[in-house]
Amino acid sequence: MERVYIHEVMPRDGLQNEPSFVSTEDKIRLIDRLSRTGVSKIEVTSFVSPKRVPNLRDAEEVMKGIQRVPGVCYTALVPNVKGAERALDCGVDEINVVISISETHNRKNVGCSVEESLDRLGKIVDLTGATSVTVNCTLGTAFGCPYEGEIAESRLLSIVARCVEQGVGGISLADTTGMANPRQVYRVCRRVKDAVPDLPLTLHFHNTRGMGLANVLEGLRAGVVRYDASLGGIGGCPFAPGASGNICTEDLVHMLQSMGYEVPVDLDALIRAARELQEILDRELPGQVIKAGKATDLHPA
Amino acid sequence: MERVYIHEVMPRDGLQNEPSFVSTEDKIRLIDRLSRTGVSKIEVTSFVSPKRVPNLRDAEEVMKGIQRVPGVCYTALVPNVKGAERALDCGVDEINVVISISETHNRKNVGCSVEESLDRLGKIVDLTGATSVTVNCTLGTAFGCPYEGEIAESRLLSIVARCVEQGVGGISLADTTGMANPRQVYRVCRRVKDAVPDLPLTLHFHNTRGMGLANVLEGLRAGVVRYDASLGGIGGCPFAPGASGNICTEDLVHMLQSMGYEVPVDLDALIRAARELQEILDRELPGQVIKAGKATDLHPA
Repeated sequence: MERVYIHEVMPRDGLQNEPSFVSTEDKIRLIDRLSRTGVSKIEVTSFVSPKRVPNLRDAEEVMKGIQRVPGVCYTALVPNVKGAERALDCGVDEINVVISISETHNRKNVGCSVEESLDRLGKIVDLTGATSVTVNCTLGTAFGCPYEGEIAESRLLSIVARCVEQGVGGISLADTTGMANPRQVYRVCRRVKDAVPDLPLTLHFHNTRGMGLANVLEGLRAGVVRYDASLGGIGGCPFAPGASGNICTEDLVHMLQSMGYEVPVDLDALIRAARELQEILDRELPGQVIKAGKATDLHPA
Repeated sequence: MERVYIHEVMPRDGLQNEPSFVSTEDKIRLIDRLSRTGVSKIEVTSFVSPKRVPNLRDAEEVMKGIQRVPGVCYTALVPNVKGAERALDCGVDEINVVISISETHNRKNVGCSVEESLDRLGKIVDLTGATSVTVNCTLGTAFGCPYEGEIAESRLLSIVARCVEQGVGGISLADTTGMANPRQVYRVCRRVKDAVPDLPLTLHFHNTRGMGLANVLEGLRAGVVRYDASLGGIGGCPFAPGASGNICTEDLVHMLQSMGYEVPVDLDALIRAARELQEILDRELPGQVIKAGKATDLHPA
């Protein structure tokens, strides 16, 4: 069976959306736990303005405080060149630049046009020139925008091409507010893979409308083997206060392993980490497997 | 695109698992609302012992109190001949007999062996002989048993064959405690469809471990077009107190319609009914679309 790679985004996409600050100590302990579960990549933090995202104001301390496990890629989200410089100073393995393909969403999210974001992306790639650091570009609202609605697939494809011209090492397609449906996922992924067959492609789904794992299935069918997910399913969306966040890491791993995919991740350790996260956040998390246990957990008759 | 048929099971599988009794009046009002949404079938109640399932002790009143909309099939779950007689007295369109393919689960659920259940099934089919009432058999634990674990697919297939011998008009495969994974769903559905290609086949999934809608996708790929679902995603599982219940009707319809399937159900009316259910039950329901709205609901920039 095919190997599937799990990218843990809870420390960034999850904690960024939490109502309160999680202590630097708790962040480091959770990331260190996650490093030992077998996930391929961890999005450790985001080098953004602490005023815009106060929950991640400790980006430097977290990045420098974690114990790095060989083989795990430690990445950080950055919106601009200044963020990239901060990330490089902390020794990240990868810089993840976020650009929304929706003009409106990109302005709201990073405060400039898509064209300006693409320019910044080129400058960030240049910055990393002499280092071993790779640059991934996450294309937000890739499956629809909460302001503009559908975005033409041709626009997505042309932005992907621009990213490649700028020298990215990988692309992530992000369903920022959970609008993607499985049929669309298959079609879009096939088109992107046909356009840039050799570029590592990651999918980033939210479970806002319950379709998260169904979308993963169609991504897999289209040949995509890298998935972002968030421990406990935290993350959320500012437009859907009560809804689920990112797809849940332990639910994703549970599904893939039960289907026979090669996912060398310690599911029990993930579930324990999710339960610890639940204690730290002191509320019920959206993940299902932390509540129900694994399908193989039997009960005495 | 293919037509998909939605069977609403909230009034039975959902309310049966609720911590408290929902009034007969509320049940009738909700069912009457659901009747006008375009769903194909409604499982109105269960004719079981009121001692075993006190929440459905008003089976007769509910069945006789609803306004029946032509074209909607009104079904009721029954565990035995006595239940079938009560159901027939109330003029159901279909009797849904439940048999678990796990010996242990069947004994716990209906108090007899699978063999005895199959005998009862034959007697129930005989009872309906002179009427237009059809008998559907729901095979519980079809994808795994919380006591016994995996159940051989050969056993499922031989029980399906026995049901056909007994004269059933349809079979539902129920993932009673949410153990099914998508790959298994495809494989099992293909085998059952190959064995009994002309028998109407329904899938009944729970979202206990988050795989509910992913399982629907693989059911569709295997050619199954009938799905049970529960308004608001209520239902639950006695072994997983905090976990989701049945797959959520409005989330299912939202996904299928967004994929382009022909599902002539009024999604807005369904969402309104789910919000009413949420008020009646006075707690947050597992459904996602009631919280997030539809993917096409845009926000002002």
